[in-house]
Formats: sequence, structure tokens, C-alpha cells
Amino acid sequence: MENPKAIPVTASDLQPVLEVDDLKGKVGEEIETAGAIHAIRNLSNVAFLVIRTFRDRIQTVLEGERLEILKEIQEGDFIKVRGKVVANNVARGGVEILAEKVTKVGGPKEPLTMKLGKKKLDIPLDAKLDERILSLRHLDERAIFKLQEGVVRAFAEHFSGRRFTEIHSPKLVEAGAEGGTNIFQLDYFGRKAFLAQSPQFYKQFMVPVFGRVFEIGPVFRAEKHSTSRHINEYTSLDCEMGYIESFRDVMREEVGFIRHLIIKLQKDYAQELEALKVQLPKVEAIPSVRFDDIKNIVADKYKRKFRDTYDMEPEEERLISKYAADELGSDFVFVTNYPWKKRPFYTMRSADNPEYTEGFDLLFRGIEITTGGQRIHDYDVQVQSMIDKGLDPSQFGEYLKLHKYGTPPHGGFAIGLERLTMKLLGRDNVRETTLFPRDINRLTP
Amino acid sequence: MENPKAIPVTASDLQPVLEVDDLKGKVGEEIETAGAIHAIRNLSNVAFLVIRTFRDRIQTVLEGERLEILKEIQEGDFIKVRGKVVANNVARGGVEILAEKVTKVGGPKEPLTMKLGKKKLDIPLDAKLDERILSLRHLDERAIFKLQEGVVRAFAEHFSGRRFTEIHSPKLVEAGAEGGTNIFQLDYFGRKAFLAQSPQFYKQFMVPVFGRVFEIGPVFRAEKHSTSRHINEYTSLDCEMGYIESFRDVMREEVGFIRHLIIKLQKDYAQELEALKVQLPKVEAIPSVRFDDIKNIVADKYKRKFRDTYDMEPEEERLISKYAADELGSDFVFVTNYPWKKRPFYTMRSADNPEYTEGFDLLFRGIEITTGGQRIHDYDVQVQSMIDKGLDPSQFGEYLKLHKYGTPPHGGFAIGLERLTMKLLGRDNVRETTLFPRDINRLTP
Repeated sequence: MENPKAIPVTASDLQPVLEVDDLKGKVGEEIETAGAIHAIRNLSNVAFLVIRTFRDRIQTVLEGERLEILKEIQEGDFIKVRGKVVANNVARGGVEILAEKVTKVGGPKEPLTMKLGKKKLDIPLDAKLDERILSLRHLDERAIFKLQEGVVRAFAEHFSGRRFTEIHSPKLVEAGAEGGTNIFQLDYFGRKAFLAQSPQFYKQFMVPVFGRVFEIGPVFRAEKHSTSRHINEYTSLDCEMGYIESFRDVMREEVGFIRHLIIKLQKDYAQELEALKVQLPKVEAIPSVRFDDIKNIVADKYKRKFRDTYDMEPEEERLISKYAADELGSDFVFVTNYPWKKRPFYTMRSADNPEYTEGFDLLFRGIEITTGGQRIHDYDVQVQSMIDKGLDPSQFGEYLKLHKYGTPPHGGFAIGLERLTMKLLGRDNVRETTLFPRDINRLTP
Repeated sequence: MENPKAIPVTASDLQPVLEVDDLKGKVGEEIETAGAIHAIRNLSNVAFLVIRTFRDRIQTVLEGERLEILKEIQEGDFIKVRGKVVANNVARGGVEILAEKVTKVGGPKEPLTMKLGKKKLDIPLDAKLDERILSLRHLDERAIFKLQEGVVRAFAEHFSGRRFTEIHSPKLVEAGAEGGTNIFQLDYFGRKAFLAQSPQFYKQFMVPVFGRVFEIGPVFRAEKHSTSRHINEYTSLDCEMGYIESFRDVMREEVGFIRHLIIKLQKDYAQELEALKVQLPKVEAIPSVRFDDIKNIVADKYKRKFRDTYDMEPEEERLISKYAADELGSDFVFVTNYPWKKRPFYTMRSADNPEYTEGFDLLFRGIEITTGGQRIHDYDVQVQSMIDKGLDPSQFGEYLKLHKYGTPPHGGFAIGLERLTMKLLGRDNVRETTLFPRDINRLTP
């Protein structure tokens, strides 16, 4: 470097932030770490500071003159700790830090309105969401979203490993893929634009390009109803694959992902699984049952009548899952061949009965977490399908270019990240497993 | 499985789609693969079909009665091929497939308007973008976005490896983080909502939760001007880290990412680098120069006067990069300590001179690809900074909860994915490296 005013920046490691697992091999060594003060236990001639590190917690021991710092710090403060690692059987991980220096680097302006050090937050969901910026700091809350990261990483790993290419498609679009009125609209430099309800068109566009693609990104649904399973913005895990023989190829790929997910979480997210007491499902194969069959089976078995012959009621999904768990030994169940009437215009009809489709849902512990299926790849069939649905093909000029320029047989599916997390954790409201939920009443924080 | 109507779906492998590299170890074996017909060379008693597989291409040889299929297929069709792998020195990868069966599975409705088999597309950018659904199928075009996937994967890998947690924050927000009028607005169930200009507030919210976070997602800028470096929706690679000593910790982390990026692309994306003739930069350290210093150095060196003392003109960025390349031996250069006047309200002022900030940009080959810096973590300082900027702190109630509940010193940066890709590839319009660009004139496809 010629100029003395140019200072080189290198990738030399930042001061590491150590977790309790890292300390196990460092007994006797002097180390430095950082975190928030989770709890203070002051026994007058000795005090214990438990700090929340990035993922875990570490006990720090204060003795002698180091006890002075207690006058300056409180729970919720952020500190750096330097000290020696010592073994202690009763401390978390069998190690603790004998503090030499504790430095406060940040802290609350006023007393916190929640006890973050408590084992359970024990406040209503709405209060938790109103104060999300604070409640997320609780060990259990942040564990949910650490585990959710694991779901995302498992998805990316599985599909990358299977030679799917990751894409990022636009969320500002000219037309919705899912139809209906559930779409947010905005002014885009004087013209009308919409927020993508799904990356459906774009992932299909990419099939002739890369053969197989996946995307992880936000989708927007302007649904006016507020239920425990719906939010208005969520993270969609999408994939689309070409050269399939049937929608069963797509389902097989999903089984592969779910098996990888379980292995990944067990391997890399064991501490969150334990903290949240998650019972992971066991998955070898996942049973698939035709829509009509499973409706009849469940109606018979549980002596229930359901009104909607073209769709599923939530209670029906619950009973199908119960049947799958009790009779088929599976927490997951594919429901296949949904009626054409209830599926979008791009869904392929079944060759043997065009009133049904090559579309499927995946139910998990009582709720639909995936919609997928084979798409129409032939131009004329796609145009006819639009007409049959009462749509005007001339409104879909860009989309129909896919078929005009040609595309191989293909299909795919989408998983709602927050909903899958909800069911993995056994929660009953998707807001519990959404970082900053958006619903008809909630746009903040 | 008890019920005969329940069919088990297993993760047994789908028919693999083989690439030319996979064939090298399979000479003599019978295999199956699939792709689009890239080129047909018919020498009457033998014909060569080159197919575009998911990432590469494979030569297929037709002889004898297999030549019959030529009557049914054309360039741009999608086929499955079964045949024996044979060695051939002059074929790509030294192997080809002696076809036994070629099956057409899809194809264009009418002749394609572009010659996808040509080495270069050679059409103007606007034509390429108007027909994006077709032009992306060209080898060079898709190579751009395969390489872009590599940038994303490198970002996720680097930050996961450094114990950053991946988050997905909402894009529908109540207030913008970057201020100004460059924000899209929409009706959200009767109230006003905006599209996030950046995940700035949310990544800051997560610092006290996970210590370090990263996010890969869309951001939206309603900028009315149309330039070669701006688009209205792009993918932002964001990170934010707690417990820093200064913004130099953030820059070090970015150097680490860039070094990993180069290694990753060389290792896993060599074929795209070669196809696109990419000259990757060499990076050991990246020089950093203060904003005022570099402005003076460049004005002196290149005998230029610049009007704006608080910001950079594009020509100035270009000359700074030229200086860095010629005099400091680096394709990258950090410009640090930007004037407070031109940085957002959350930027920390420099302790030694409050008219400057602990903020930086990273320039790469003539253009800014990153803005970053240390943020204010103290409540009172943040409130005062808003007032100094002419903002009303009561409008930022949710954001200020971060400071009210406390947060450690922290900073971060954001990289525009498409712009970084543009400069890596030596292109001069960001639309070249945007999958489906959105600008003032373009909302489709």
C-alpha cells in the first residue's frame, strides 16, 4: 500500500464469542466472551452471573474485588467477560468462567417489563407480540427461531444437494398467480402492481432454464380473516422440478426433504429441540391417499358428515391426520387428486378423470403444510384450462410465453415455513412461530 | 399401512439427471438423462444432438433407425435420452451418449424468436429483458444466474460458519428505515403500509436476541430515476453483529466474506467462471481510506474538482477505484467516515469529530456495492440524532424500543446482490445480472 492514509483491513478473526460447548476444551485457559445478563445470584462473598450468549448460556463467578461490578450491572445488561475457564460439575456444560474483568457495554434505559431470566415467559400471546422486541430475547422464544433457521438451512441443503438451483424472483408483479381478491395492490409509478402471492409463475419460468429450482422468500396474502393458521405475510419454501413422470416424483422429493430436515435438526439443533421439548416425527415413508377415498374413510371411521365435497374443512384435516397417525402410523399424510374445481388454473387434470387433478396436499399433525402438484406444460391445454376457469387467456400473456416457448412436464410444491415450524413445535397459533407476524390487526413491530 | 388405499411414498431417488461430468466415470454403462435440444447436426447417416442439461451440455449420437426421431424434434424441444456412454476425445468432457431411445416430452408451440444454440445471443439488453422467459435459456444468460446462486450460497455459508443466525424479517412495514420519498406505499386493511427499503430495523432488533444475524431477501426502492446501476427491487445481503469495538470489526467481517466468496466460486462454480470469462479479484487485505482523504487524493491525482463535499459523484467513485487499483493494488476499497449529513439517523457519529460518522462504503471496480457502519446503541443519543436530522422521535416508537430495552454496540452492512454480480462479471448495467428486473418502465415479465 503506497499511501499512508490507506489502512489495510484484513479478515483476521474478530474477538470470538464463545459458547459453553467451546469452553469444555479450554479449562485453565483465559478467554473472553460476551452476552446479556440472564440472572444474577449474589451470595455476598461470591456471586454468579449467568450470561445469555448467542445461543446458550454460561455461568460466570465473581469473587473478591470483582464483586464491585454488581453495583453497576443488572439483569438485561450487555457485558463482556474476561476470565479463566474452570471445571464445575454443577454448572451448565460442566464449566464456568472465573471472572477477571466484567465490562458493561450496553443496557436498558428503564427497568424491563418482562422477566427474561424466568424459565417460562408466561404471558399471553398478544402481549408477547406487542413487545416482540423484548420477548424474543427470552431463551424459549429465541430457540423457536433458531430452530426455524434449521428448517431453512435443511431446505436449502436438501435441494442444493439434489441439483436444484436457488433463485430469487420478484415480489412486485403485474398479476397474481393464485387468483382471487386475496392480493395486495399498490401504485407502481402510475400503474397498478401487486405483491406476489407465490413465486409460482417465476419458478415455472425457470424450469426450462435450470431444470430444477428452489426459492426461499416472502409471499403476501391479503386474506381478511384472522385465524390461528393464517398470516398475511409468510416465508414460502418453494421448489419446482422438470422432466417428472407424474406428481408422485414431486411427492418423493418432498419425502426426501422431510427426512433430511429431521436428520439436520437432530444433528445441528439438538439444544433447541431439547429446550423446546420437541418430539420430532419419525419418517420412513409417507402414506398417500386419494382425496375422495380419505374423505370417505374418515367420514365412516369417525361417523362425521362433511358438507364440502370439493374441499377440506379444518376439522376434516384434523381427522385425516388422526387417522394417519392411528391407523397408518404416520404424522404426515399426502392427500392426492384434489377436485379440479378447487385447484388453480395451472394444475394438471388427471388423465383418467378430468374432474380431478394431479395435485396434492401434505397434512402434518392436523393441518395442511404443503400444496403441490403437476402443472400443465402444453400451451393449448393451458389456454383451455384458463377458459374453463372463467379466466381470459389474454390477461396471461407473459405467463403463457412459458408454454409458447415450451417447457418439459414439471411440478413442484410450497411449504409455509412458519406453519411447518408451528406443527413441529406442537404450537396452535402460527403467530407463535412467526418472527414478526403480519395480520389484519398487526403491522408492527 | 393398514388401508389398501394408502400408498406409501418413499424418498427413493428420482431418475437422476446426469451432467457430462457424471458420465466420465460411466463409460460403457447404460444411462438416462434429460434436457433441451441445444443444437442438431445432421450428417445424413449419423446425427449429433447436443442437449442442454441443467448446468452443462452433453452430445448424443444418433445412428441407424434412431435417426427417425429427427423428423419429430427440433431445437428448443425437451427430450429424455437413454443410451450408452462412450468415450470421444472431441466431445465435451471426452464422452458422449450413443442414443438408444430419444423421447420428446415438451416443446415450443411455434418457432423460437431467438437462436438459443448460438454462442452469443447478440441482441440488445431491452430485447433480452422483454423476452426474459426465452433469453434466460441461453447458456450465457443462465450461467450468470447460476453464478449468482454461488454468491448467495457463499454469503450464507460464511455467516453461518461465523455463528450468525439467519432471519427472515417482514417486508410489509409501518415505517421506512432509510427515510425520504423512495418508498412504496400500499393500503393494508384500511391503514397505510410500506414496502421495506431494507431490513435495517429488524436486523438491529435481532442483535440482542442472537448476537449476530444475517438475512437474504428482497428490498424495495421507489426511486424514480432510471440508471444503469439502480433497480426498484433487488436482493439485499444483510448482516448485523453485536459486541463490536468499532466499525472496523464490521469491515473485517466483510473482508472475510469476500475472501470466502472468491474461494467458493473458484471451487464450485468454475464452469460458469470459465464460460463467462470472469476475472475474479485477488483479495488479501482491502485498503480503507477516510472519505475526506480519498476525495483529496483523487482530486489531486486526477486534477479534478468535485462539487459535493458531503457525498460522492459516480465519476468520483470510478476514480477512487482506479486509484485503488493502480496505486494500492486492490479491486476493492473501503471509504470510511462519511459525513454525518449524508448518512441515516441511526449511524454513529465519530467520537473525535461529530460531523463525521463511523460509517463506510465498499467500492468495487468503480461502484459502491456496500453501505455499512456502526449504529447508535444508546437511547438518548439515538433520540438526539433523530432530532438533529429533523425527525420526530415519537414517529419511531417501535424502533426506539430497541434502545429503551438495551442493545450492545453493533454494526453491519448490506450488499446489493445484483450489483455485486454485475461488477464480478464486468457488466455495465445491473439489469444484465437481475433475473427479472423491476424499474420505472419494467414490471414484467
